[in-house]
Amino acid sequence: MMEAEMHKEKSPREWRSAFRSGFVTPTTGLARGYAQANLVIMHKEYALDFASFCLRNPKPCPLLEIGSPGDPYTKFLAASADIRADIPLYWVYRHGVLVERVGDITSLWTEDLVYFLIGCSFGFEEALLSHGVPVRHIENGSNCPMYISNIDCIPAGPFSGKMVVSMRGIPASLVSKAVTITARYPLSHGAPVWVGDPEGLGIKDLDHPDFGDPPVLKPGDVPVFWACGVTAQMVASNAKLPLVIGHAPGHMFIADVLNEELSITGGS
Amino acid sequence: MMEAEMHKEKSPREWRSAFRSGFVTPTTGLARGYAQANLVIMHKEYALDFASFCLRNPKPCPLLEIGSPGDPYTKFLAASADIRADIPLYWVYRHGVLVERVGDITSLWTEDLVYFLIGCSFGFEEALLSHGVPVRHIENGSNCPMYISNIDCIPAGPFSGKMVVSMRGIPASLVSKAVTITARYPLSHGAPVWVGDPEGLGIKDLDHPDFGDPPVLKPGDVPVFWACGVTAQMVASNAKLPLVIGHAPGHMFIADVLNEELSITGGS
Repeated sequence: MMEAEMHKEKSPREWRSAFRSGFVTPTTGLARGYAQANLVIMHKEYALDFASFCLRNPKPCPLLEIGSPGDPYTKFLAASADIRADIPLYWVYRHGVLVERVGDITSLWTEDLVYFLIGCSFGFEEALLSHGVPVRHIENGSNCPMYISNIDCIPAGPFSGKMVVSMRGIPASLVSKAVTITARYPLSHGAPVWVGDPEGLGIKDLDHPDFGDPPVLKPGDVPVFWACGVTAQMVASNAKLPLVIGHAPGHMFIADVLNEELSITGGS
Repeated sequence: MMEAEMHKEKSPREWRSAFRSGFVTPTTGLARGYAQANLVIMHKEYALDFASFCLRNPKPCPLLEIGSPGDPYTKFLAASADIRADIPLYWVYRHGVLVERVGDITSLWTEDLVYFLIGCSFGFEEALLSHGVPVRHIENGSNCPMYISNIDCIPAGPFSGKMVVSMRGIPASLVSKAVTITARYPLSHGAPVWVGDPEGLGIKDLDHPDFGDPPVLKPGDVPVFWACGVTAQMVASNAKLPLVIGHAPGHMFIADVLNEELSITGGS
């Protein structure tokens, strides 16, 4: 992390170049202002169903970009980023089993693979902070807690499963602000899906999340739940496809596009 | 239209049933409050590229739903609507040429066809009206004027072309309101792409739109341009695919989902 701190002023392109050269770091807080994205790669025969799945479940899986089969270079989120090398760390699943953690997937790339880039919560967290809404796990230097909820995603082809949600403790007086601010970022999971009692989401023990670190709740904080992009990778690996490649948790794709360009007032 | 007027209180499901029985009418103003959508159907081999195209150009082509190959029944915008019959009127293109206008495409449907449903401006027009922003062509009982702009869409596979835009004259004092209201509906084309001088968009003669009726501008109105869903059908037919089927202009798919559910504060 110290080396990462030293390079905080790098541009998205410079970060991607560092990752291509083998540098590995979580991407939280890097290239502030720029959008980051979840990665899912699969064979083209499943890709249309996966696109359908994402569209039917836009809160957990806001689609940002789909590659053309065999083409590893991005066109929309960045000009010609190499999806096989420009992410710090990849997880490789075969038939639903995590088999490898690697910094480069060029040797695995074939002409029938398709990449998906899906919105990530870092965008709205930055907006919360800049509007004075505290984000407890960032204050605490830990990862956001994530839970497998009881909300069924709408299935498509081989893809189905429960929605994964992320939780942030928000002071009661700031819940409205947190809702209206994050609603401006539909491609970054948008407004919360649930405010309050975790049991209604089927979460029995808030202190033991399914992914990430235990929650940080201060007195007076309300647990607020947002749809989470981990849903996409979980659903893809649950489908037990011959090959699924995702980013390692927290090691995202850094785009040339600003978070604000993906907000409701940005873009064209 | 008189029969349509008589049935104004029908539900989306009842309207789709009427269309399935052969009733033909433009869908403007029907089933108020409910979302309507543009239709594009093509062979599955082109579908992934078309999905990419839509994602790269989200303002003109906000993707709402993609069908599974061969499956004509909707899953997201409506429960089991039949995409082959539940729209009042279809246009059929072969190799880019409009060859047929029909009320039912069941006889054309094959196992390798995929449907796309794409957001439509009716949703934000309803929101403008309910906030007191006049919509001139609705006041006038005419169609919205549409223009082929000089904005290049980001291409994907065989799909490329200029962005089609729709124009509404908005009183200068209400332009801000029109922007902020429509920004709440990113799946209904969102905020305008251009406010003011049409020449900057490459529009030489505002009075002669490429599609729709001549504009209605009152003194003090500013021409305001939104990305338009006609882009999707134009780009699909320009690709000269063996078969493209779209809705006839103004004869849209009526969804069970409310416009507000597709706004930034709706949905889940």
